[in-house]
Order: sequence, then C-alpha cells, then structure tokens
Amino acid sequence: MAVYKLLLLPGDGIGPEITAEAEKILDFLGEAGVASFETETGLVGGAAYDAHGVAISEEDMKLAQEADAVLLAAVGGPKWDGVPYDVRPEAGLLRLRKDLALFANLRPAICYPALAEASSLKPDLVKGLDIMIVRELTGGVYFGEPKEITDLGNGQKRAVDTQVYETYEIERIGRVAFELARKRGNRVTSSEKANVMKSGLLWREVITALHKREYSDVQLDHMLADALGMQLVRWPKQFDVIVTDNLFGDILSDVASMLTGSLGMLPSASLGAPDASGKRKAMYEPCHGSAPDIAGKEIANPIAMIGSLGMALRYSFDLPAAADAIDAAISAVLAQGLRTADIKGSAASSVSTSQMGDAIVKEL
Amino acid sequence: MAVYKLLLLPGDGIGPEITAEAEKILDFLGEAGVASFETETGLVGGAAYDAHGVAISEEDMKLAQEADAVLLAAVGGPKWDGVPYDVRPEAGLLRLRKDLALFANLRPAICYPALAEASSLKPDLVKGLDIMIVRELTGGVYFGEPKEITDLGNGQKRAVDTQVYETYEIERIGRVAFELARKRGNRVTSSEKANVMKSGLLWREVITALHKREYSDVQLDHMLADALGMQLVRWPKQFDVIVTDNLFGDILSDVASMLTGSLGMLPSASLGAPDASGKRKAMYEPCHGSAPDIAGKEIANPIAMIGSLGMALRYSFDLPAAADAIDAAISAVLAQGLRTADIKGSAASSVSTSQMGDAIVKEL
Ligand SMILES: CC(C)[C@H](C(=O)O)[C@@H](O)C(=O)O
Ligand SMILES: CC(C)[C@H](C(=O)O)[C@@H](O)C(=O)O
Repeated sequence: MAVYKLLLLPGDGIGPEITAEAEKILDFLGEAGVASFETETGLVGGAAYDAHGVAISEEDMKLAQEADAVLLAAVGGPKWDGVPYDVRPEAGLLRLRKDLALFANLRPAICYPALAEASSLKPDLVKGLDIMIVRELTGGVYFGEPKEITDLGNGQKRAVDTQVYETYEIERIGRVAFELARKRGNRVTSSEKANVMKSGLLWREVITALHKREYSDVQLDHMLADALGMQLVRWPKQFDVIVTDNLFGDILSDVASMLTGSLGMLPSASLGAPDASGKRKAMYEPCHGSAPDIAGKEIANPIAMIGSLGMALRYSFDLPAAADAIDAAISAVLAQGLRTADIKGSAASSVSTSQMGDAIVKEL
Repeated sequence: MAVYKLLLLPGDGIGPEITAEAEKILDFLGEAGVASFETETGLVGGAAYDAHGVAISEEDMKLAQEADAVLLAAVGGPKWDGVPYDVRPEAGLLRLRKDLALFANLRPAICYPALAEASSLKPDLVKGLDIMIVRELTGGVYFGEPKEITDLGNGQKRAVDTQVYETYEIERIGRVAFELARKRGNRVTSSEKANVMKSGLLWREVITALHKREYSDVQLDHMLADALGMQLVRWPKQFDVIVTDNLFGDILSDVASMLTGSLGMLPSASLGAPDASGKRKAMYEPCHGSAPDIAGKEIANPIAMIGSLGMALRYSFDLPAAADAIDAAISAVLAQGLRTADIKGSAASSVSTSQMGDAIVKEL
C-alpha cells in the first residue's frame, strides 16, 4: 500500500472542526487499505501568529515543502485585523502559494442537483452547472513589485501595486486550462481586460498563439473580465473551462461559486509544475473562508474540506477511484436530505459538522 | 429659458440609433419650454478612427471641453479589433474620462419592477433593488505608469500595468459616495483588496479617516472585492451605495447591473470636480456596449440612453423635475407592457427603437 505524506494546516475559525472530518476520511482510507497517509499538522494564519508571531513558521514551510500535498482549511478573522501587514493571516497563504510555486488554481463551480433550489439564481440556470475556473496563482498584482505606500508629506500618501505577467507564466497556465478542457467539454474561455491593460494584451496574445500551436482542437473564446462577470450571472452554463489571471480569478471564481448555491461545498486545488518524475507540489483548500462567526459551534459544513481531500486523491495521489467515491458519497448524503445549517433551506432540521462527516464515511 | 451646450457622441454600433431617440427628448424639452439645448455632434471610437485615424479628434476633444455635458452612446466593435492599441475605440472613451477629469462614475443598478422576472435571479431578490455604485474613474490600473510590454528576447515578453492611488483621489471619490448616501439609504460599502494590495490598504485607511472626520452619521462597511462579488449575487438588497476603485468598479458594476434584469436600461454619469462657480464637467452614457450584432436593425433598446440624458438633466442642468419626469415616463411605458426585443421575455411582441423613443416622448 502506497504511503503519502500529507501536511494538515487547519488554520483559523472553523478550520480545525472541518479538518477533523477530513481526518476521519483519511483514517477510513487507511483502514480500507486504499492508501496510507503519514500526516503532520502545522499552523498557518492567525493560529501561527498567536503561537510564533508569523503567518507561517519556517518549520511548517519546511514540512509543506517535503509533503506530497498540503490540505489547508482556512485563515483569518477579525481577531487579527490589527496585526502588521507582513504577518497578517493571508500572508501565510500567499507564502505557501508562492514558495511552493503553486501557479495553477483549479476552482470547480458545480451545482449539486440537490441544492439547485438554494442558489439565488433561477434553478434552471444552475441545475447541472459544471464550470472549471483555472486561476493563475503566483503572479499578477498579488506579487508584482513595486508594491508600497510612500508618504508624500502634506497628509498625502501614494500606494502602488504592480501587475506583471511574463510570457511563460501565461503559457503554463494556459496549458493547464487546455489540458483540462480536453477531458471535459473541450472549450476554454480566456478572460482579461485587453482593452485597458497591457498585461491583458499580452495574455490574449500568448493564449491565442498557444492555442494555434498546440491546442487548435479545443474551442477558444476571449471575453473581457467585466463581460465575463455579467455572463456568469446571465447564463453560467455557457462556460466549460475559464482561464484568467490572479486578481480576476479571485473575484470571478467567487461570483461563480456563489451562483451554484453550493458555496460551503466547493473545493479547490493549487498545483505546481510537475518535476522530472512527474510529481507536482500541491495544496488543497475549500473555497469558503474561516467563518469566525460560527467557529467552535460544530455547525460548519465540512463538505468543501472533504471535497478538497478528494481533489488531493485525484491530482496528487493518483487515486481517481477513491476520489470518485468521495464525490459520490457527498452527492448521496445530500440526496438523502442531510443538511448542515448553511444549506438547510426549508429542511426541517440540520446536522452537525461531525454528523455530516460521519455520514460521508458511512456512505464510503 | 436656460440654454445648455450638449455634445452628442453617438460612437459605434447601435450608438447612432439610440442617440436619435435621445434627440427626440431634447427636442421635446425645448418645445415644452423646459430648457433649450445647443447640441453639437462629434465622432468617437471606431467612427472617429474611420474618419480621422484616431479614437477622438482634437476638435471633438475641444467641443467636449467646452460643452456643459457630453452624451456618449457606445464605442467599439469587431471591425476595429486589429487597429493599433493607442487608437482603438476604447482609447477615445478613456481620453474623455481622463482629459475632462471625470473621476466619479455613478452607476445605478435599479430593477424596474416590470422587469423583475427578466433577471436571472429569483424575483424576490431583485424586486425593488436600488444600488448606487460609485466607481473611481481616472486612476488606478487604467492610467498608472509604467504600462508597457517589454521584449525580453527568447520569445519572452513582460507586460506591466501599475495600480496607483493617492490619498486625495480616494478622498474625493469617498466624499461623492458619502454625499450620495446621505440622500439615499445613508449606508456606504467600501470595497478593495486590502488583504493583498497596498492600494487597497491605503483606500481603506483614507475612507475610514474621512468617515470619522466628516461623515460619521453615515453607516460605513468595508468588504473585500471578492466577497462583494459574492454578496451581490447572494443578497443584493443589502447594499445602498458601494464605492470602489476603477478596475473593481468596472467588474462589480457590470455584475450588479446584470442582476437587475435591466441591463439594456441602465444609465451612468461620470462627473468631474465642481469649479469655483459650482459647475462640473460631465459625461453621460448607457452602461451597455455598442452591440454591433444588432446595429442598424432598429431593435436596440434606447432606454439606457434616454435615462442617461435624464441623469444629465439631474446632475448637470439642475432640472430634477424634468429628470423625474423622464424616469416616470420610462417606468410608465414599461408598465404598459412596451418592450424592445432585449427585454421581450415572454411578451407577445416587441417594438422598435424609435417606437420606444416615441412612446416615452408621448408619455412626457
Ligand atoms: C485570503 C485571500 C488572500 C485569498 C486571495 O485573495 O487570493 C482568497 O480570497 C482566495 O481567493 O483564496
Ligand atoms: C470600454 C471599456 C474601456 C470600459 C472600461 O473598462 O472602463 C467599459 O467596460 C466601462 O465600464 O465603461
């Protein structure tokens, strides 16, 4: 039986509660002889700040570098609103992305049929929705320099952020999108603001050339980011794979996941480039945040976290059957009517975080 | 009777058709003795490129500078996809915004009750929706330098855009938002990405200080731009006035306007700072684009254009009663069941661009 090294980073807020449910799945997979996991647990975000005064410690970064995959729950909360910028909770997340070179963020926006009614969109528009958003994650305005605030005197300051993209960064994320599309609906929509941004212009040029050169069998469209925001609301099912930059991806993937009515349910994967042996660094996280308002109440929905583990099985551990089984178990418990509070809707009652986790294990 | 100088810039696509309908309203207002308009007509976008090889000529820029207000319909279309970046249709629009110093872009997202069913959102969520998005329009990544593509050799290029904001720019747009809020629901939501952008950090700092200093009677919240994108979809009625930067405003206002089901219907105003005599430069435009696919077919919806003229009456010409009358006339023809093709829905038939314009004049 293969042994995989997994670093768990529960982080803040509801993070620890939902991580506990993912661990139940890991235990089950071990007992069932599917695979065995060597897990370590580290601190990130506010939890790391409280313990070490940083957003992630060097030791935990080392563990992350050595692991086959990282499973992170969520970071942040009002408790750390006042901490210095460089050690704010998000800095831990950003450092993991950057230092592990996780340039490809995969955010599926799927609508669980049992939850179509929970969407704020009309059910017909979202039933069966299945979009994959591929977001560039280590470049753009998140990391470009200069990035600074200068005091100009007279009570005036100037703040600067820099959006930078090089050809190779656009090419490698484009490649991820085209490869994924071939296994899905074979369509890619590339999005930028080429009408006002030079990085958008280069983005469009590089994606167009890559398509022509290597992926002309895939259907490619370009759509400005503002228009894409609109079209997501108007008629989301027109999309298959969307590829876009770090900042547009941040906003558009959140809009897309909210459309599904399944926000507490959506996982994500952040992948690096494969090395010579085909292995790639990877981090998996739910799309939702740390929800400090409900932390510790045992009512958080663990499905996105368990789904993220499912993505780890698929993309890092080459266990597609086990990943499929997890997805099927999630769909099954939802179809049975099991609901945590966030997706309760008009249901009569809801289950706790651990009841949901247990039900999924049982289904497996 | 006051005389106002208005520059009409029909631009491209459906622009000329919908401008003709706005002119009918101008004629009516003149005949009715409400106000008299001295209009000039210029070229912008692809139309200017075809005539002069630029996105707007110096003569037309001069007319814009001298006018009391500019009424622009729409620019762009696939016909000009290949023209050089500096003279692409959008450059005309951007130059008008920048050279007239129109830093405050007001984009109401309202849902006409008669059209609540046309939204992709559930009708209850949008019925009665009335949000005002205040977008900063002359700063940020649209205009910051450096903004360039550099050839690095080896087939590699680097593209750079620069997001820059200074204290005074944030303060003046914040002031517009707070002032508007006082005349509406008295609530402002300020949005940025302070968790990853220094400009977001300064934005939050400046808005917070301005609020404390001058507008503590208004309720202020901060919401990250990705979270705001989600919340717009989830529960748009939670918002009153939203204030945000140029790029976030571009995307978020498009998402918001699509929510209303009334996209072809929404006007916008772009305002400069008042001069010593209280006069401010201003440009009014529909939120929709040039819709080249339906241009020349006389089926475009002129309501956003007529609504934009209404905003001109309100914000530039101090004719609030006439502006109210236009809004009422639009609501009335909609309530009567009149529909252009874009908002036809399940209606039996639709009217042409000019039939809609005539009906609104008749209602006036
Ligand atoms: C927490 C924050 C830094 C992060 C981002 O902006 O990327 C989050 O919004 C996300 O989408 O993962
Ligand atoms: C046409 C384009 C340059 C413009 C923008 O990006 O500002 C448009 O999308 C808008 O919102 O007015």
